[in-house]
Amino acid sequence: MVKTVRIAIIGMGSVGRGVLKVLADGGSIYPDKGISFRVVAVADSKGAVVNPDGLDPAAILKGKRDGTLKRIGNLSSMDVVREVDYDVLVEVTPTDARTGEPGLDYITEALSQGRHVVTSNKGPIALKYKTLTDLARSNRASLLFEATVGGAMPVFNLIRSPLAGNEIRGVKGIFNGTCNYILTRMIDEELPYEMVLSEAKELGYAEADPTYDVEGIDTALKIVILANSLFGMDVTLRDVSVEGISSITLEALKLASDNGYVVKLIGEVRPNGTEKILRVSPRLVPKTHPLAVQGTLNAALIETQLAGGIVVVGKGAGSVETASAILSDLLYIAMASKQ
Amino acid sequence: MVKTVRIAIIGMGSVGRGVLKVLADGGSIYPDKGISFRVVAVADSKGAVVNPDGLDPAAILKGKRDGTLKRIGNLSSMDVVREVDYDVLVEVTPTDARTGEPGLDYITEALSQGRHVVTSNKGPIALKYKTLTDLARSNRASLLFEATVGGAMPVFNLIRSPLAGNEIRGVKGIFNGTCNYILTRMIDEELPYEMVLSEAKELGYAEADPTYDVEGIDTALKIVILANSLFGMDVTLRDVSVEGISSITLEALKLASDNGYVVKLIGEVRPNGTEKILRVSPRLVPKTHPLAVQGTLNAALIETQLAGGIVVVGKGAGSVETASAILSDLLYIAMASKQ
Repeated sequence: MVKTVRIAIIGMGSVGRGVLKVLADGGSIYPDKGISFRVVAVADSKGAVVNPDGLDPAAILKGKRDGTLKRIGNLSSMDVVREVDYDVLVEVTPTDARTGEPGLDYITEALSQGRHVVTSNKGPIALKYKTLTDLARSNRASLLFEATVGGAMPVFNLIRSPLAGNEIRGVKGIFNGTCNYILTRMIDEELPYEMVLSEAKELGYAEADPTYDVEGIDTALKIVILANSLFGMDVTLRDVSVEGISSITLEALKLASDNGYVVKLIGEVRPNGTEKILRVSPRLVPKTHPLAVQGTLNAALIETQLAGGIVVVGKGAGSVETASAILSDLLYIAMASKQ
Repeated sequence: MVKTVRIAIIGMGSVGRGVLKVLADGGSIYPDKGISFRVVAVADSKGAVVNPDGLDPAAILKGKRDGTLKRIGNLSSMDVVREVDYDVLVEVTPTDARTGEPGLDYITEALSQGRHVVTSNKGPIALKYKTLTDLARSNRASLLFEATVGGAMPVFNLIRSPLAGNEIRGVKGIFNGTCNYILTRMIDEELPYEMVLSEAKELGYAEADPTYDVEGIDTALKIVILANSLFGMDVTLRDVSVEGISSITLEALKLASDNGYVVKLIGEVRPNGTEKILRVSPRLVPKTHPLAVQGTLNAALIETQLAGGIVVVGKGAGSVETASAILSDLLYIAMASKQ
């Protein structure tokens, strides 16, 4: 017997399109698991497309690409979240680190209705983790957010299942591909920060306003999410000590390299008794250490009491890569709700 | 409601003692998951200890250590597998790559009775994967073997859950800590193979007869297990092209190093259409590649169609580390059988 899981997708940016692409390319049906996904609504700031019998993800993508997608203009994303009948909300609107909106409202509304939520949106999870998980629990709904930290690189799902039974002592790693790219290029090509940053912007590895990445805010948001979800802390961005990479000189990187080190922007969270460690800063990593990964890669070292240190490395961003994390959350919910 | 899962452990070597230690140190009870483990039997070649009401893992360990453990001498391991009432058999006897025995008989008997099996024993899984999984399926039992590949480093559980929905295109990596230790020390200390091998034996990183490790047989067994379980192949050790590290010279490692590479014993499996790739050989890995891990670490690169390449790094051996893999399998079975 195949269980059909109905999905409403809010957001058609890079991640939303990645999810649609994965579903279009065979990711809708899992005969061995007895699961199929049906997209019943897709919405963005321009309106929504709804069909309880299922939309064609490929057609939506094509329509979005060539500008022919016919949205119902007066049906807002919130209307979809409130009124459409779906099982899982895939909330993939852009992150607002200050307010969490508009995603926070959508997630709150869906959970209040007892619907499951899968999100890639760091804002709501970093700002309101406890409120949202309490709401999910009291409505017997799941709230999963693998895609918020490290894109395709599994962290939460790794700890939930393959490392089950392990007490997690701390997590540290490289959680921002833009910073890693800049630091890698600077030392490899012996170029100064500003020049590599310009190049990164041209290649699309850095935003026009790169502050959010290079000043460590994006990494700090991920540290907040890890802190609250893995260690039961109740912290916000203000609790994280943050230093970015914008004042790092090529000379400093060369000096490190001559001594066998690379410089990486490292985010770290560790309960450490009453003295919590929550920090983001450029740090020396031995070149031979598993965290010393290059380019846009992300890497996380998960310290456990039984398995010791486990390092996972993967692509921290990318449309389809991030969609892979969302898909694993969707499958987890689908499998759990089958039983 | 707490579900009690009854465990019978066959084997009291390093892994068996690790499992007992983990269970003694708080690993028996998971209030948040509603699961507790009860050891109802422990057996080795000298006899067995049985108590349907539960044995004290700490007392067994102490008795084993100081030689005071009172086994029932005429109760064999097979008697325990056949006659004791348990839910999961933890089969952790030593690997025999040629026959798979005695583990193969124990696993076959337990599965025939419809009991779940968790094993760290590479022999039975490499030799009889299809037979054993068919037997498990027809008896509605689970057969899990995370501990057979990479010790604490999750591979199967990583693919099952965090990478769910991804098609696995290939796996390659470092699956033998002894070889990795030898290759790392040779280049770091500029010492010849024979000298480092002697040192590794003294430190307990290599066996008195290191053939199994240094000639690549251990890695090849793991490649067979990955091939059969991840890619549905039906292959044995004979199908793997195997070259070990015993003829590698320090000069070769130096030449590689001067050109930015390290030499690693790499196992690889890839379906590759009709032309299967199954090989173990020393290969050049760029020093900056995530697989270029040092010392006794293991590392696996899992290539997927959505998430891209995911690398996981961890301790490939060790008593408690391997027990961590067994524990994650036990928890998976316990959670599944709760529903």
